[in-house]
Amino acid sequence: METITPERLSLNTATTRPQWTLDKAIDGAARHGFGGVSPWRDQLQALGAEKAARQLREAGLGVSGLCRGGWYTAEGALTDAVIDDNRRAVDEAATIGAACLVMVVGGLAPRSRDLASARAMIEEGLGKTLEYARAVGVKIAIEPLHPMYAADRAAVNTMAQALDICDRLGDGIGVAADVYHIWWDPAVKEQIKRAGRDRLMAFHLCDWLVPTTDMLNDRGMMGDGVIDIPDLRQAVEAEGFAGLNEVEIFSADNWWKRDPDEVLEVIITRAASSC
Amino acid sequence: METITPERLSLNTATTRPQWTLDKAIDGAARHGFGGVSPWRDQLQALGAEKAARQLREAGLGVSGLCRGGWYTAEGALTDAVIDDNRRAVDEAATIGAACLVMVVGGLAPRSRDLASARAMIEEGLGKTLEYARAVGVKIAIEPLHPMYAADRAAVNTMAQALDICDRLGDGIGVAADVYHIWWDPAVKEQIKRAGRDRLMAFHLCDWLVPTTDMLNDRGMMGDGVIDIPDLRQAVEAEGFAGLNEVEIFSADNWWKRDPDEVLEVIITRAASSC
Repeated sequence: METITPERLSLNTATTRPQWTLDKAIDGAARHGFGGVSPWRDQLQALGAEKAARQLREAGLGVSGLCRGGWYTAEGALTDAVIDDNRRAVDEAATIGAACLVMVVGGLAPRSRDLASARAMIEEGLGKTLEYARAVGVKIAIEPLHPMYAADRAAVNTMAQALDICDRLGDGIGVAADVYHIWWDPAVKEQIKRAGRDRLMAFHLCDWLVPTTDMLNDRGMMGDGVIDIPDLRQAVEAEGFAGLNEVEIFSADNWWKRDPDEVLEVIITRAASSC
Repeated sequence: METITPERLSLNTATTRPQWTLDKAIDGAARHGFGGVSPWRDQLQALGAEKAARQLREAGLGVSGLCRGGWYTAEGALTDAVIDDNRRAVDEAATIGAACLVMVVGGLAPRSRDLASARAMIEEGLGKTLEYARAVGVKIAIEPLHPMYAADRAAVNTMAQALDICDRLGDGIGVAADVYHIWWDPAVKEQIKRAGRDRLMAFHLCDWLVPTTDMLNDRGMMGDGVIDIPDLRQAVEAEGFAGLNEVEIFSADNWWKRDPDEVLEVIITRAASSC
């Protein structure tokens, strides 16, 4: 397996969220020789999608994904607001030429304990967004989130579950495989194989710290935790995945407090040594 | 489905751990009309297993389980110390007439990222304990733990994975189904069915709070969270599960700070209203 060089890396802009606005993140990623970025929508909207697209082109950066569409359950029904927002997300992904629109699908509906209904609502919503995305030529990537987020962020929690949805919805939809969310899964290898090249749309890196002190914002730098990242990278590359290795680290008490140029330097070192 | 009455409840002694030693927990459970308790080994050893058995008999309480054997990966190999400790756990379970010995199997070995090896070590260890447990007449219940504990507590994280192990190891081993660990799993219903009456050895209740502020000690009282407990109880009872409904709540900032008699009163109320 080849060592990950900087041009094979993408900076998910959540990794430097408190330090850098999107234009600074694009500059930073280019300055450090990264191959791309993956912006978050709020940051993209603050800069303007057209302006971002121009800056990305001039910097010669790819876009490994746009984070994020989804949240179909947020209003307890597939309201026009929810569907329209996802259409806008598709449009934004198209504008910046994102490899995929990453979907954090939403958890339980407000004041509900009905996980089956939430999952049905999510699948219906994904179907609607997919129909539009196909027309526009944007790929939809379901990101299965760790089961500890089932209640409040995403009720799609395994690769198998995401791929079952993909099977039912057809072409143009696949998965974003984030090592943080899937590393524990006894079926992860067989599901990566099942996904195959066309449906492996993104590969996200960080690490699982022991102990993890915060369920949301205590992700680790690659090499600082317990995930066997090379093992998972080998599995996705064996299927022919050739996208960028996207680094997404939510880290309130550590990496978000550091000089972002230092953060990118460490990412480059760890991508080579620990991924 | 019948309402849970107090005599259908078991008090897992972790629920009142800071307030009550085991002898007080046994008295408390009996005083409130519970049908049983499920002690932890450290508390049992502090009281003495023979003495506890006598007190339990005199109080007319059942024992829905002994918490816990397992931790096969703790020393990075199946040492005599690990195997012997599990034999002692089996003996203790036999002494108090526990319906099963609950297994928290252990996570990654120290300084290891090799989840597959950890899982192999766990299965080999379970096989050794099972052999002894069969001879003594004690049932072994694997407790699949929530995936957020895969690194540091248990690398068996789904009902399917636990039942795969049971399939390979044969008679006398089953699962302890704790709603906290399994509620998110898209396959939970089919796996409860697959387990069937003989392998559903324990059923544990608490609730998943939103937000959850601590990964270990912020479990909720039934009704305070988002788990559809009646739905899961119906599923296990449909298979013929007739054991006690064991309440196990780790709650550093709430229930562990209250008068334990109040805690048991609330459990009785919520068992009737929210389970």
